[in-house]
Amino acid sequence: MRTLTVNDVPVALWTPENTTGPRRLILICHGGGQHKTAPAVVHLAQRFTSAGYAVAAADVPNHGERPTDQKLERLANTIQARVDGGEDLASLLAAFQAQVAAQTVPEWQAVLDHLGVDTAGYWGVSLGCGLGVPFVAAEPRVRAAVLGLGGAAANAEVAARITVPVEFLIQWDDERVPREQSLALFDAFGSAEKTLHANPGKHSDRLPEHEIDSAIRFFARYL
Amino acid sequence: MRTLTVNDVPVALWTPENTTGPRRLILICHGGGQHKTAPAVVHLAQRFTSAGYAVAAADVPNHGERPTDQKLERLANTIQARVDGGEDLASLLAAFQAQVAAQTVPEWQAVLDHLGVDTAGYWGVSLGCGLGVPFVAAEPRVRAAVLGLGGAAANAEVAARITVPVEFLIQWDDERVPREQSLALFDAFGSAEKTLHANPGKHSDRLPEHEIDSAIRFFARYL
Repeated sequence: MRTLTVNDVPVALWTPENTTGPRRLILICHGGGQHKTAPAVVHLAQRFTSAGYAVAAADVPNHGERPTDQKLERLANTIQARVDGGEDLASLLAAFQAQVAAQTVPEWQAVLDHLGVDTAGYWGVSLGCGLGVPFVAAEPRVRAAVLGLGGAAANAEVAARITVPVEFLIQWDDERVPREQSLALFDAFGSAEKTLHANPGKHSDRLPEHEIDSAIRFFARYL
Repeated sequence: MRTLTVNDVPVALWTPENTTGPRRLILICHGGGQHKTAPAVVHLAQRFTSAGYAVAAADVPNHGERPTDQKLERLANTIQARVDGGEDLASLLAAFQAQVAAQTVPEWQAVLDHLGVDTAGYWGVSLGCGLGVPFVAAEPRVRAAVLGLGGAAANAEVAARITVPVEFLIQWDDERVPREQSLALFDAFGSAEKTLHANPGKHSDRLPEHEIDSAIRFFARYL
């Protein structure tokens, strides 16, 4: 693994052995509160590079090595106060993630530019789904996406613009994303080829390893 | 493929090359109106035998080579009349399938006995789910089951007694099984390891080939 900086965004890059460059790359987004080399990201990156892909992961604003973003910090505090005051978490979180995505979409596009990637997959759940839906909708170099642990409140309209194949993960006992919200987001994707995988477990429980196997086969079908 | 008869039930048997006998077997149930060598069953059987499994499929009462069962015929006609009269199809179908399952559970157990099988997988959707849930719940030699295209009205209580791993298939645009009924059946399985796969398509649309790949890997994990 090596690190680089693209327009001040810290990026981790893994490349498989015996390749000339990261032409087929999977971009991973870490979860909320995590960072580009959190254990879950490193594990995924190792599995994907073993399957022959290059992998990149960037720190999301206000995460990892990035400086505190005062505007996002204030917005997060405001949201926390409004949730404490009884407002619906899902819609507030949706507004927050849309704000962050306005930054991460161009940041990640710059990463693909910098690496000279013309075909990419995307993998992101939870925060990585909230930020991934607008990214996948906006970026034609992304040809297939694994998304999940996110709901329709954030992204249904944007999701309808996605037409590339999607594999969508639900934790069946997710205590943070209401099940019907997850099902509604899957329903919203405009993709002709989309597949929903649900497994028992709460929001932050480890995903079954067979879902990583499945993601590798999913990317192999479309990248 | 060869055929045999077990207690007057016609059975098709496929065995992989280079094995001494069908010790690891997958029992397939055909869909409603089909039979033990319908094209969908033969295709599945070929995929499973290529993966090293023996495969058996029996004609369900009133299907394939079996004689007309007057009692089931009358019951089916009664149900049709009640559906025409506006009654709910799902609960009537559930009652019908329970009646048929009272025959098929011991019939299929006799097939496993006859073949000397001590570890089996089960694959059945639609009718094969309605009959499969009571079979998998009753038969300890079944260690893993792929089920789907069926709803909770038929089988929720029986499904709760199933504890072996289940891979459950939903056609997302199923016009015969209401989506919430399918989700409720997945919810009802007592299995700690269960995984839901949903794909776009109507009830009788061909399942994506990648779901057969997935079923093979699912059985490989548990058989």
